[in-house]
Order: sequence, then structure tokens, then C-alpha cells
Amino acid sequence: MKIALAQINPTVGDVSGSTEKIGRCIVQAERDGAELVVFSELALTGYPPGDLLSESDLVAASVRAVEALADKSRKTAALVGFARPAADTPGAPLENAVALLEGGKVAAVHVKTSPATYDVFDERRYFRPGPPPETMLVAGKRIGVIICEDPPDASRPVTRLRDARAEIIVNVTASPFQLGKGATREELLRRQAISAGAPVVYVNQVGGNDELVFDGASVAISADGTLLGRCKGFDEDLLVVDTDGPPGRCEPTGGELEQLYRALVLGVGDYVRKCGFCSVVLGISGGIDSAVTAALASEALGPQNVLGLVLPSRYSCEGSLTDARELAEALGIKLIEVGIEQIHRAYEDALTGHFPKDAPGVTDENIQARIRGNIIMAFSNALGHLPLATGNKSELATGYCTLYGDMCGGLGVIGDVPKTLVYKLARFINEKTPQRIPESTITKPPSAELKPDQTDQEKLPPYELLDAILTRYVDEAKDFDQIVGEGLDAEQTREVIEMIQASEYKRRQAAPVLKVTSPPFGPARRAPIASRRKAGQ
Amino acid sequence: MKIALAQINPTVGDVSGSTEKIGRCIVQAERDGAELVVFSELALTGYPPGDLLSESDLVAASVRAVEALADKSRKTAALVGFARPAADTPGAPLENAVALLEGGKVAAVHVKTSPATYDVFDERRYFRPGPPPETMLVAGKRIGVIICEDPPDASRPVTRLRDARAEIIVNVTASPFQLGKGATREELLRRQAISAGAPVVYVNQVGGNDELVFDGASVAISADGTLLGRCKGFDEDLLVVDTDGPPGRCEPTGGELEQLYRALVLGVGDYVRKCGFCSVVLGISGGIDSAVTAALASEALGPQNVLGLVLPSRYSCEGSLTDARELAEALGIKLIEVGIEQIHRAYEDALTGHFPKDAPGVTDENIQARIRGNIIMAFSNALGHLPLATGNKSELATGYCTLYGDMCGGLGVIGDVPKTLVYKLARFINEKTPQRIPESTITKPPSAELKPDQTDQEKLPPYELLDAILTRYVDEAKDFDQIVGEGLDAEQTREVIEMIQASEYKRRQAAPVLKVTSPPFGPARRAPIASRRKAGQ
Repeated sequence: MKIALAQINPTVGDVSGSTEKIGRCIVQAERDGAELVVFSELALTGYPPGDLLSESDLVAASVRAVEALADKSRKTAALVGFARPAADTPGAPLENAVALLEGGKVAAVHVKTSPATYDVFDERRYFRPGPPPETMLVAGKRIGVIICEDPPDASRPVTRLRDARAEIIVNVTASPFQLGKGATREELLRRQAISAGAPVVYVNQVGGNDELVFDGASVAISADGTLLGRCKGFDEDLLVVDTDGPPGRCEPTGGELEQLYRALVLGVGDYVRKCGFCSVVLGISGGIDSAVTAALASEALGPQNVLGLVLPSRYSCEGSLTDARELAEALGIKLIEVGIEQIHRAYEDALTGHFPKDAPGVTDENIQARIRGNIIMAFSNALGHLPLATGNKSELATGYCTLYGDMCGGLGVIGDVPKTLVYKLARFINEKTPQRIPESTITKPPSAELKPDQTDQEKLPPYELLDAILTRYVDEAKDFDQIVGEGLDAEQTREVIEMIQASEYKRRQAAPVLKVTSPPFGPARRAPIASRRKAGQ
Repeated sequence: MKIALAQINPTVGDVSGSTEKIGRCIVQAERDGAELVVFSELALTGYPPGDLLSESDLVAASVRAVEALADKSRKTAALVGFARPAADTPGAPLENAVALLEGGKVAAVHVKTSPATYDVFDERRYFRPGPPPETMLVAGKRIGVIICEDPPDASRPVTRLRDARAEIIVNVTASPFQLGKGATREELLRRQAISAGAPVVYVNQVGGNDELVFDGASVAISADGTLLGRCKGFDEDLLVVDTDGPPGRCEPTGGELEQLYRALVLGVGDYVRKCGFCSVVLGISGGIDSAVTAALASEALGPQNVLGLVLPSRYSCEGSLTDARELAEALGIKLIEVGIEQIHRAYEDALTGHFPKDAPGVTDENIQARIRGNIIMAFSNALGHLPLATGNKSELATGYCTLYGDMCGGLGVIGDVPKTLVYKLARFINEKTPQRIPESTITKPPSAELKPDQTDQEKLPPYELLDAILTRYVDEAKDFDQIVGEGLDAEQTREVIEMIQASEYKRRQAAPVLKVTSPPFGPARRAPIASRRKAGQ
């Protein structure tokens, strides 16, 4: 059977935009000779629609769109993801559904069996579970549809569909990118196809929606586990595969760093565009975080749409300014320099006599960071650029950053990338295009430059150690005893865990952060602020 | 049967603190002659524990605490809420459970049947559902336990327990305060008791945990619907009721404004204390929002623990300064004045020539608001006071506020109170204690004073209309057509809805806001930022 994998990039809430995209794909699939075209989960509302689902007009528009699209299915059938009320009564719960459009009408509907409620998923908040999947007859073939149950969760419905003698299994999904997940996912799909004894067609969403980046890379796999086709990663695609024929186009997936790079480029580009902006502004310190963020934004939006601000204080060293200028030149972005010394002095004058002599040094450091934040936001307001935050995951985790200061911005581009991985990403960027990021930016010791001769390692453990603890505590949800049991230093482990717990309040007010590792410091982390916890006690 | 309602105020994550409290209550209940003492839902971990549940040591501590507390139950049985793994295998799902401690051991455990997953509740993220409730024998009586299923959700378990001939129904809950909910809740419990033909003992948590304020007001109701006893609202309490005897102590509930006032006082006090602070700092503008916030904080923490900052700019009128000083005197709080004119000029100098002549006026307005934010945060850093944000719900909804400016703070005290209700609250405060809030603060037209002769109504509809649209769109989840169908102006309805949608990005970075209406702009609202929606189209 010839099936088209239609991998689209919907904007959440934009039902009319998605309807047009889906309509064009059905026409194209028909031209390409496909008997069936498959779209991703909730293709009509975009994924994840969140509380937009509580607006009844969105759900109603999604139901109307399915009916309107049915008309286009006279020659090629389509499986289209949408949301609908479970009944015609007001206040009825919703269903996460896929409609089979065939012969000009809605021929069948399958409702998602197990709405996902973990990590970034909140589906039980909106959707009631549907019955176990049945097969549907499409062009004479028994097709079993499952909605976004990533393997291994899908093992139960797959068994059920095998028992129902499904000839093809279609898995309709919206599976966010996560570093290292792609290969595992494909291997599990391969095993699924073999155990079901039927080809598996897996169609994923692509594009960034707020924190989440969907990588696409939809695949078709034959009953014997052979890859029949793979769509592009990180881009829209329409690929027709023949489930009975030889393998067709298989796009390469790229290595992990390349995937990370493309995920971040797509994420920042889509966030900016889908928020209705076309350009960004960010502070350029001469350090590695702002350099990598600027490089990603330049790739996503074009260097002409990136404005860098270099905002030196009395503590900025000449090398930092040189690095900032060198970076701007290499990327081809505009750089504006605004010194903060006079403003800093005006604050000192205004606050003279109000603070005790032994007031914490962080007071003055934060004043400087917040002056910079204010200037970046003023450029954003005056020129209409979306501001980008440049902090990395290690900083956000430990609270080594200033709320309303360097944390300012509409999006934290590398806020889910640990510092050690930021370095690798910088090297990767320079391998792709030599000398994008100045060598001295990569090699000098990291510093916030908010007091004389400051370095990050005055307050933080070495980043290799910090990131090792961070990954175990946050991503792997290990506790103090488990981490120390793996041989990490007890004192430093306790210190890092306490810093992470104590800075929950900063992350609560942080800009959304592109999720690329798991779980992120974002909506997927729901830790209380006012709480009492003790590491290892 | 003599049952003690133990209404405690736990700190989330503080299992050892809760264990102590629970232990003391069991001893006291035994002294008071109770045969059974009942605690609120998840009393040992505090509610809501959120992602702390993913830290296995917290759950383990909660399980150990139940075993330790069992020893205290030799004379008086206890029902204690805790979290436990569903099985002894690593990675097993969790259960939201209540242990019956009796005769010195854990005699039975009931698991919550329907973990709540709506509004502020996320329980399906952590807990798997338990079986329908059975009765347990306590001191010779058949007791049916249900966990936090607010009526009317509880109708099914109540029917089941009636069929199981439960002699007493115990409802163990953590039900957050919501304006106007209390009376409804009690009426539904009354009907529940009558339909079950058995007394209902309803024990609620009390205290603030981040955004949520639990009001307590636990009650016992006889089989014929008579109120047998009511605990204090907004305070810890231990009340022994006799389910076979005459009504005992019934604390008054107070009117709606009094409840709102007490909820906010408890919420801000607990947030500050549970975060480990004892004092706060906030900007005092002479306007009503900061005046009400300061009055609430003074009541919660004592005026000696509240520092007001008056931060006049070139646009501040003399009347505002007078109002600020009068307020500080009436409340007995310290007021420090720091003019921002010199700092404002330093920004103007630094930015000269960088912006076009027609740059949006909001640029300069925001610079001023952010200068104030920076100063408030500097006082917080230097003196160790927790900063409070003073914005109201109408502002946060429409985005009529400056991110990183007046939105700075650790907690938004009145961020879920619409402006029209802020005025009522101010009047209520002055009725309780005359002249707390200056009359001119209440009567003058509201203004941000960020440009000459500015008033809120230049950019916003009258607050009565704005709040009417806001309540319908956000709290009641009505769409454009429904709101206009109720007779509200179409143009202004569209404008307000668009403002609400467009400022999602600001709320995402707002301080946590005390939830007092429903649903709030806080964790309970999960709307995407980058989306495309059109009001009424």
C-alpha cells in the first residue's frame, strides 16, 4: 500500500492555517499516487494545545475542519488528528482523536487510548481515555491506528492490533526531541513491526512550540524490520512509502551534536516567528553562552535579524570586548556598545547610606546584571526585537544567574543545555564553519565579570562535576545516597543539590527554555518553592 | 463516636516537622477522649508535594513516618495521609494513601480512588488510582474513608460506602480556598451525609503552600444534616466531635471579604515563613494595589517586618508621595524614599541616539518601572527581605504591567484579585480598622505615573467592564460569542481577550500569585505563548 507520511509544522491554536496545510498535503499525496496520507497527533490544533482546549471555539473549529477536509478525500484517504468533545452536551470531556477521511466523508474515528500524563505531558487534564484500538478498513486493508504511544508504552495496543490481524500499524504522534532519544525510538519501532508482523508507519510532528521542539524524522518500517523510508529531521516533509515495495528515500539523522544544534535552531526560529517577531536582541558578553546563543539565532533568523548588545561595566576586561566584536564580525550581526558605568554610578549615588557596610556583595553584582537587563529590554521595546536569554542549564539549576538581570528574555535558547555541552556545541559550530566562535571565548575561564577577577569556579564546583551531579539529580531523579553511591563527592553533591533546591524560585520566573534534555527546568518540573528538604538527611 | 478533627498546617516536603505535629495531635486527641483522630490528605508530605514526589527519599520518609507514628495509636486510632510506592520494585508508581493506625500498628490502608487532574491538581502525574473505597472497622464502627473527592465528585464513593453500610464517612482532603466555595462545599457535604444516612467528618488542610491557600474550616455533619462542629478557618485547630452527641464548637466562617482578607494574610505569611524569611520589602506608589498589599503584609508579619520604598520619578505627583507617607504612618511600617530621577537620566544619556524618534512610548515607561524593580531587589539582597509584587489580576491579565519592573517580587499577593475587588478589599480593611488606607488612595483615578497625566483608562476599558469580561473569559472559560451573547460590548470584549492572549508571555514569568479566585493565572493556567488565536473569529 502506498502511504504518504505528511510531517507538518503546525502553530498551536491556528486551526485555519493547519487546515490549509493539511489540504495541500492531501492534494500532493493524491498526485504522488498515495492511497492514504497520515498526519501527526492533533495536527489541526497543533501540539500541545494546553489550556487553549478550554476555549470551546478552538475545539469546535477543529471539528468543523475535519468535516471540511473530508471533501478532499475522494481519491486518497487521510488520517487527521483533531480534538473533539466526547458528547454533544456542554462541559463534556474532550477526546484526542484521529479521523479517517475516505470517499469524501468521515469514515471512522479512533480516540487515544492512554492520554499521556508525565514529564511535559498533561493530557489527562483535558482528555478522557478512549477504548483500545480496533482496525479500520482503508482501501481494502485492515489498518490499526494508535495515537502517540511511544514504544514501549505501545506494546499493549500493538499486541491487540496483531491479534486483530492488522495488516498495517499507523502510529500518529507528537514526540518532542530529546537528546539521544531518536535512535532508541527507531529501534523500538523496528521491534514493534517485527512483533506485530506488520509494517509500522510512524508520523511525528515537526517544529517548535514554546519549550518543545518536535524533530519529525517520521519513519516507515517493514514487517521484517527494514527501514522503508525516513522523513527529514527538523523540517516539514511529505514522503510516500510503499509498504509492499523496496525502501524509498531515507533521510540521514545526523550525529547527536548535529541534532542538538538543529533542534535549537528550529526551536528559536519557530518561537520567534510563531510569536509574530522576525528579529531578536541579546546581550553579548564575550563569554561562551551568549556566543553560542547568537550563533544559533543567526542560523535560525539570518544574521541581519540579530542585534547584539555589548554592555561593559567597570569590571569588563578588554579581552571580553574584543571577543564580542570578533564574534559579531564572524557571524555578520550588528553590535551596539552601551557602557553601563554612568548608570551604575547613579544607582550607587541613589543607594548611598541605605545599606550596611557588610551588605552581601551579590547586591552590587545583581544591580549591574539588572542594568543590562533593562537596556536589553529597552532595545526590545524601541526596535521590536524579541529579547533572548543566554543562560545555560548549569547556571539555571544552581541559581548562578540574576533574576530580572541576565535571565531577562522571551526565550532561554540554551537554558536546558549543561555548560559542558555548551562547550561541545561551540566546538561543533566551529567545525561546521571555522572561526564562528572566537577561540579565546572557548578557552578562557568562564566569568560573570561582576566584580574584580571573578570566575564561576569561586562559587561553583568544576563544571564537569557540577554537570555530572545535575544530570543524576534532575534528569535521572536520583537522590543524594544514590549519587554518592556512584562515587561522586558527598560534600559537593550536597552543595549542588541544595543550590538546585534553593533556586526553584528563580526558575519559576525564568523565560521558557527550549527542552532538549530530560526532564527540563520548565513546565515539566513542578517543584514547590516554599518547602523544606534536606539533601542526604 | 468521639472523633478529633486535626487540622494542621504542614510545610511541603517537611516530613519530620509534620510527623512531630501529627504525634502531638494524637496525644492531645487521646487526652480529649477521642477514639479516632483524623488528619488531612497527604498530611505527612504536605499538599501539594509536586515533583518532590520524584525524590525517592521523600516518599521513603513518609512511609517510615507512618510506621513510627503507629506506636502512638495504642489508645486512640489515627487516619494519616501519606504517599507510598505501589510496590517494592524501583520505579513503581505512587499511591496517595491514608493509613489507619490502631493498637500500635498500621491496621489498614486506603488508596485514593480518583487522583485529581484539573485546575491546580496534577495527581495523575504521580499517583495511580486505587480501588473503590471499602469500610474499615475502627473501635467497633464501620468507617468509610474517601480521599479528597470534593462533592459532587464524591457521589459515587459515597453511594458505594452507603451500600457497604458505613456508619461514619471520613473525607480526608486538601481543598484550596476559593472565593465563594466554602458555603457550597458545606451544603454539598450536608446533602452527602443525608444521602449516605451517616455522619460525614471532613478534614481539610490549612495554610499556604506557594500559590495555594488552604482554608481549613473542617466540619462534622450528622446523618440528618446537622452541623456537629466546625474548625477555625485559616488557622490550625483540633476539634473533638461526638457523632452521636449534640453539636459542639462551630467556628464562624465570616463573610466573603473577610474570608478573602484572611486567605491573603495567611497566604503571604506562610509563603514568607516557609521560604525561610521573616520580613518583606515592597514599592509603595501611593496607589491602591501597593497600599492593600502593604496592609495585608503588615497584618501577616507585623508592621516592623515590612519595609516600604517610595521611588518617585519626574512624573510622580505630590499627592502620591503624601498618600504613601500617610499609609506608612497608618500601618506603622518603615518607609524609605529613593528618587529615581538621576538614574533615569543616566539611562537616557546612555541610550541617546540609539532609538528612532518615534520609538514606542512604552520604552521609557518600562525603563522607569525596571529602575524601581532593580532598587527593590537591591534592598532585598542587601537587607534580606523577601520582595513582594503588588500587581492585581486585571493588570496581569491584560499585561498592563512591566515584566522585570513592577512585576518583580517573590510573591504576587493580590495577583489573583481583580481591580474592582481590590477596591472592596481596601474598604473592608478600613472598616476593620479606620483609616488604614488613605481615602484619597481609594478615590483618585488609578495611574501608573510613568508619563505626564497618565491614567489606566487611557489604555484599558473601565475596570467594571474589564473585570466582567475577565471573569467570564478566564474564570468561566466562556468564549467571545458567549460573552457578547450576555450583552457585553463586542469591541471591548475582543480587545480584552486579545490583551489577555497577548500577555501570556508576561504571566509565564510572573511571580507566583496567591490563588483566591478560579482558575488563577498561575500553574493552573497552561496556555501556550507562541500560538495563533483570534477572538470571535
